[in-house]
Amino acid sequence: MKNYTSIQDIDNINSWIEEAKALKASPLKHLALGANKTIGLLFFNSSLRTRLSTQKAALNLGMNPIVMNVSGDAWGIEFEDGSVMNGGTAEHIKEAAAVVSQYCDIIAVRAFPTLTDKPKDESEQVINSFIKHASVPIVSMESATGHPLQALTDAVTISEFSKVAKPKVVLTWAPHVKALPHAVANSFTQAMQKMDVEFVITHPEGYDLNPEITRDSPIIYNQDEAFANADFIYAKNWSSYSNYGKILNSDLDWMVSAEKMKLTNNAKFMHCLPVRRNLVVSDAVLDSENSLVIQQANNRTFAAQTVLKKILENL
Amino acid sequence: MKNYTSIQDIDNINSWIEEAKALKASPLKHLALGANKTIGLLFFNSSLRTRLSTQKAALNLGMNPIVMNVSGDAWGIEFEDGSVMNGGTAEHIKEAAAVVSQYCDIIAVRAFPTLTDKPKDESEQVINSFIKHASVPIVSMESATGHPLQALTDAVTISEFSKVAKPKVVLTWAPHVKALPHAVANSFTQAMQKMDVEFVITHPEGYDLNPEITRDSPIIYNQDEAFANADFIYAKNWSSYSNYGKILNSDLDWMVSAEKMKLTNNAKFMHCLPVRRNLVVSDAVLDSENSLVIQQANNRTFAAQTVLKKILENL
Amino acid sequence: MKNYTSIQDIDNINSWIEEAKALKASPLKHLALGANKTIGLLFFNSSLRTRLSTQKAALNLGMNPIVMNVSGDAWGIEFEDGSVMNGGTAEHIKEAAAVVSQYCDIIAVRAFPTLTDKPKDESEQVINSFIKHASVPIVSMESATGHPLQALTDAVTISEFSKVAKPKVVLTWAPHVKALPHAVANSFTQAMQKMDVEFVITHPEGYDLNPEITRDSPIIYNQDEAFANADFIYAKNWSSYSNYGKILNSDLDWMVSAEKMKLTNNAKFMHCLPVRRNLVVSDAVLDSENSLVIQQANNRTFAAQTVLKKILENL
Repeated sequence: MKNYTSIQDIDNINSWIEEAKALKASPLKHLALGANKTIGLLFFNSSLRTRLSTQKAALNLGMNPIVMNVSGDAWGIEFEDGSVMNGGTAEHIKEAAAVVSQYCDIIAVRAFPTLTDKPKDESEQVINSFIKHASVPIVSMESATGHPLQALTDAVTISEFSKVAKPKVVLTWAPHVKALPHAVANSFTQAMQKMDVEFVITHPEGYDLNPEITRDSPIIYNQDEAFANADFIYAKNWSSYSNYGKILNSDLDWMVSAEKMKLTNNAKFMHCLPVRRNLVVSDAVLDSENSLVIQQANNRTFAAQTVLKKILENL
Repeated sequence: MKNYTSIQDIDNINSWIEEAKALKASPLKHLALGANKTIGLLFFNSSLRTRLSTQKAALNLGMNPIVMNVSGDAWGIEFEDGSVMNGGTAEHIKEAAAVVSQYCDIIAVRAFPTLTDKPKDESEQVINSFIKHASVPIVSMESATGHPLQALTDAVTISEFSKVAKPKVVLTWAPHVKALPHAVANSFTQAMQKMDVEFVITHPEGYDLNPEITRDSPIIYNQDEAFANADFIYAKNWSSYSNYGKILNSDLDWMVSAEKMKLTNNAKFMHCLPVRRNLVVSDAVLDSENSLVIQQANNRTFAAQTVLKKILENL
Repeated sequence: MKNYTSIQDIDNINSWIEEAKALKASPLKHLALGANKTIGLLFFNSSLRTRLSTQKAALNLGMNPIVMNVSGDAWGIEFEDGSVMNGGTAEHIKEAAAVVSQYCDIIAVRAFPTLTDKPKDESEQVINSFIKHASVPIVSMESATGHPLQALTDAVTISEFSKVAKPKVVLTWAPHVKALPHAVANSFTQAMQKMDVEFVITHPEGYDLNPEITRDSPIIYNQDEAFANADFIYAKNWSSYSNYGKILNSDLDWMVSAEKMKLTNNAKFMHCLPVRRNLVVSDAVLDSENSLVIQQANNRTFAAQTVLKKILENL
């Protein structure tokens, strides 16, 4: 594996999950692997978990992390080929990616979608420009349409907490006040499609994800029905895909509440965080013993460490 | 000791001072103690000395520091329990503190007061929320009402430069153009109350600090009288406590000048920095041989290193 | 050598070039030299290459880099002696430089010119204040009038790619939409004057650099004429020096194009980056095999490592 920018870069998800669990058991076992190697973490957008867990994963492998907030620390990057750069951008991605490759053995990038320009977002211009113009491996720390480090984390967490051979996993839309990306929902869907689970998606009408991603995963527009017998409830808000980037609905009845959780098979609650309390999920659910959100956050380190280890072994 | 968020967390200030001096003499002696351990430095406010000295202290103990400007690098944190998060904050401290605890062995936090909401500031909402919701030790890098790393530094510096058994130490208010917190003055007062010094506080009327902190420390409203025979002059501005957060007085006669210093017993001059020249203190005093401000700044490293060493030994 | 703030701090440029090449061949050979030593990188302005390459150079020498964006992470610094600090600045450089010296074994500083106040810029107030008030070595990461790390990089790159004993090197002005500093052009000129090259400067009338820097280097106002038989074309925009900081000309005919490059002796193209495509230089030139811009960026690490190694050896 050279780059890790999509959950589809995982050849065998079960073996990756086992590797992450092994790293969690012995996080410092491969401290020599990344010695004197540098990872550049480039943030075009805000980050807390990804910022810290990816640094921690790199440190656990002996690497030196270098963090840069691109717009604040440097300047505007141009992504359009052939443009006459007489406007607001000061450096083309052709140079930026090639230059950062001179200093870093791996480059990790976070770049959110516009949520206004669907073709541009779907072209994954930023992350794909890095892949094209960098000479070192690229890791997505969440791109316009996917968040593969999060999805690997979620797969590890479901594997850890599953009590049955084939658990029922429900991805549920939940309300929010801001228009949010589809990245987490997309990658989670793709991860579940690779695992031996009964996977169901539920959301209000108008919130269907990209059908090229959901494929034959069942979609139920009735949340109560979807929750029946669920072993895992994974909540996430996203904006409309068909009516791109729009908020169609802020129906608080879709909030994951204690009453809703009673419909499940004593399901575990999951969310990638950050989560808005009493909007996406009620305090009672998040503060219950069934909430796995902190364990998920912890697994971010070992998902990232799995990815970085595989890349380092291939350098 | 688990947390260090108040000067009251020091059991025996003289033994801590000796430990800091020993670390200053051999800063790298305990390089193995923090190996492969991570400290997260979370800044809700600006910092220069604290930012650099705490990193240096951690490095001297072999730790990996990870620095984050919370609002710029991540997003608004919600501190109110039970709130419906449909406003400007994106993550609750319950999650934020628990999550950062997954990646860091120690969390250090800087969060200034509002200076408009006295009960909120006195509740120490930010630092106490971290103590409550984090699963790792918390260190204050200055909170709403205290700056205990600075006060330990100051205690070490006074111990180093004291020429008499029981020196006279004067904390003097000085003018400023901005409303400043009480944190440094509070913690310095509490540190002096623990040491074998003759401690006096002087400020204009209306600037009395919280009486629960000053307790029986003598307060003199006449700066000249207070300065008589002083061995150490510690200057600091703070806003009014009774008329909370207000600037009542910008009387430049309270500036520490060479003339004022002549009233003392050839006193050493101290300030936590940053200091506004020719407003808080004159160039002549700050540039004199009696100024200890740079030595204080140097001791910040060893005060922080003392605290981190004690926490690491207890992990 | 104590400080490195000007290309004139280089005693023998050929020996420095050889040292940089040796470090490029064995970057980790001196990993023990900087162990447990700290370099503070203080940015008053944005940076990408310098930010990353200087960290990489420090890591290659075993040092711990600490990065600070001065205005965002800390606060306004006062540089005027004797000022009454009742305005926007919170800390005087006298304290700031002395304090940072307590935590860092070397301080590197980036501070751009005003481009409105020529005497102030030429006094190099920021970098010279650090030299005056810090107690540790100072490295310029680009100051008001010079960029000596870039110029050493460029000297190394020309040495690597030169096919003849005495190559013809042309520094050419190129158009831009913003008023840019003279720093890169100044230091490049000074570096070329130290090397065994045929050095020519070309720019439109009104763009003459400081004559104290260009001295007897030939200046040709006709770009085509200057390009004849050139082995290296070094492009850079700068604002007017005589009509200080002004943009007099945005004549796109000065853009380095494929046609212009045909006038040369199959010259290599150089630029310090960031570069605005199709304004300073055309895509065709930048994307050609003759472009050395990425190799230059790579050499930034080894130029910085040469400087830091020499300073560390002298500590």
